[in-house]
Amino acid sequence: MSEVYAARRERLREQCTAGGSAAAVVSQPANVRYLAGASPRGAVLLLGPREDLLLCSKVPTGEPVEGRPDEHLRLQVLGAPDGDAVVAAADLAAAAGAESLAVEEHHLTVARHRALTSVAPRLRLADLGCAVEQLRLVKDDEEISYLRIASEITDQALGELLESILVGRTERHLALELERRLVDHGADGPAFATSVGTGPNSGRGGHRPSDRRVEEGDFLSVCLGANYRGYRCEIGRTFVIGTSPADWQIELYDLVFAAQRAGREALAPGVAYRDVDHAARQVLDSAGYAEQLPALTGHGVGLEIGEDPKLAPTAMGKLDACVPVTVEPGVHLPGRGGVRIDDTLVVRPEADGGPELLTITTKELLAL
Amino acid sequence: MSEVYAARRERLREQCTAGGSAAAVVSQPANVRYLAGASPRGAVLLLGPREDLLLCSKVPTGEPVEGRPDEHLRLQVLGAPDGDAVVAAADLAAAAGAESLAVEEHHLTVARHRALTSVAPRLRLADLGCAVEQLRLVKDDEEISYLRIASEITDQALGELLESILVGRTERHLALELERRLVDHGADGPAFATSVGTGPNSGRGGHRPSDRRVEEGDFLSVCLGANYRGYRCEIGRTFVIGTSPADWQIELYDLVFAAQRAGREALAPGVAYRDVDHAARQVLDSAGYAEQLPALTGHGVGLEIGEDPKLAPTAMGKLDACVPVTVEPGVHLPGRGGVRIDDTLVVRPEADGGPELLTITTKELLAL
Repeated sequence: MSEVYAARRERLREQCTAGGSAAAVVSQPANVRYLAGASPRGAVLLLGPREDLLLCSKVPTGEPVEGRPDEHLRLQVLGAPDGDAVVAAADLAAAAGAESLAVEEHHLTVARHRALTSVAPRLRLADLGCAVEQLRLVKDDEEISYLRIASEITDQALGELLESILVGRTERHLALELERRLVDHGADGPAFATSVGTGPNSGRGGHRPSDRRVEEGDFLSVCLGANYRGYRCEIGRTFVIGTSPADWQIELYDLVFAAQRAGREALAPGVAYRDVDHAARQVLDSAGYAEQLPALTGHGVGLEIGEDPKLAPTAMGKLDACVPVTVEPGVHLPGRGGVRIDDTLVVRPEADGGPELLTITTKELLAL
Repeated sequence: MSEVYAARRERLREQCTAGGSAAAVVSQPANVRYLAGASPRGAVLLLGPREDLLLCSKVPTGEPVEGRPDEHLRLQVLGAPDGDAVVAAADLAAAAGAESLAVEEHHLTVARHRALTSVAPRLRLADLGCAVEQLRLVKDDEEISYLRIASEITDQALGELLESILVGRTERHLALELERRLVDHGADGPAFATSVGTGPNSGRGGHRPSDRRVEEGDFLSVCLGANYRGYRCEIGRTFVIGTSPADWQIELYDLVFAAQRAGREALAPGVAYRDVDHAARQVLDSAGYAEQLPALTGHGVGLEIGEDPKLAPTAMGKLDACVPVTVEPGVHLPGRGGVRIDDTLVVRPEADGGPELLTITTKELLAL
């Protein structure tokens, strides 16, 4: 694995050098983990000018470190509790003779930036921009294999829940049970806070589980995902509780299913992000649900659950092969509930069989 | 509750006005929640110049909103998925005639700061600094009552675990069970990732639960806390598994207990943060454990689990009454394990009975 991190750092170094900076300091946590194997809280990666270095402060209580740092990278632990690793990195870069240091202006705070300027006044600070996020966009085989395992774990956890009795249990308990099952099956943890919505809460993106209990006739929607070695997937499904769904439930479900399928089928290398969004959105739009629609119909996944690309009407850019994304349109009718269907897929060329579906739990409307 | 938020905003407004800014934009999430009652992801609070406004973007999937926004505060939802609420706030402030806008330079990124400058070039940007964090330091009765409830929930969850059979169970399962019990007893969730360490992992601050199983003769250390209405407490205890602890276990336990008691007893209004740290630290120091000690022996708690003050050797400042803090010294011996004892207390004057212990689970060395 160590060569992978070194190779990633090498690619970044080439970009920095081309941009006129012999050194860079990476502070965004997922970026640090991508390049160094782990990102203890507040850790930063100093790239060059002489050697690469992972700087971090002593970790306070209740802050577990995820991942394992690249063993070929020197780790320097700072004494101070909130040891300002960015400032220490700038100091080291200046001492090593760097004239220019690229920083992540989209992550670095104004206060830290000022502190850099004062500790190393002769260092010219440049913007690294989202260079690391760009490197992270297309995943390698190992990253995709982690997402595949995360998805298998997620499918298992969800499948087990569906076999249990649901009526009478609260959203909160179902969410906790799903998270416990994720860990039972080998997840490092949930990829994000599990959402379970029943009845009027169903179909709301990001619904926070409440004490409402599952009732006969409810829609039940769940959204969960496993974190496996730092890689996070997402699945969302909606079910009906009881023997026979109402007509409006069947109609709404079929509509969201059609929208989600249209989004999935639009996934291919070279397709614009906004065209994938449009494919899903227009199905709901033309059925009169323009107002109820979420801002995104999907997003990238990887070391973060909501990373680039964004599948949204104003998003710029085109899909590449080996980019994992969610497709997750939904409609929520205030007071009544709704439907959300969400998969994680990897973009693949048609010659390779088209998009690879990672979350394979059925999308039939199950009556539980 | 609404008047509380308005009063907090009024105090901040007075400070801003005194600093020469008629308007401020608060972006740090816990600060937004403190002033507005809730902080949806990416939400910012615009304070003045004409009215106060909570700006947020549509919330993406898997991002539950905690808290309930102050109903007397106008909420403006932005259309874009990653709608830049800070920039929108600056735009509104400029349109409303503000000449100067105070921002949280310790939270605002360099990139956002540049965007503000470009959207409102005539607006003078000032630094709000940690003004809101300072307001948050001393808690009111309601905040302390939330911490008291959070601590009761935490004591209950821990107490139940101690009644169950522990040998043979993994750290991971014990941690999940504790988190489930927190929620069962009414927590909104865990205050931070629950840490359970057994045998050689015991006593490590922030140990991430592994698949190691509890064995006879182990030290078992746990660190957990409930989040109740946004307020987070922390408790840490160490137990021995089996009938009779070894001599080294009793000695180490007694030592850490003495250090923790010294720290607790040092808590009083007017005492320097570093003196509390020193009281606890010197006990361990003089027993020869200087190298093994954590950077902090305690910290403030509230809307964040690790907030000001920091109880550390170089910390500046003095305790006030009604400041809740943890006291949590520990020693970890590599390969053998260790002890950590952690309480949440509220600083009170001696006339009121001295420090109020919120986490009341026994600190005897229990053999389980």
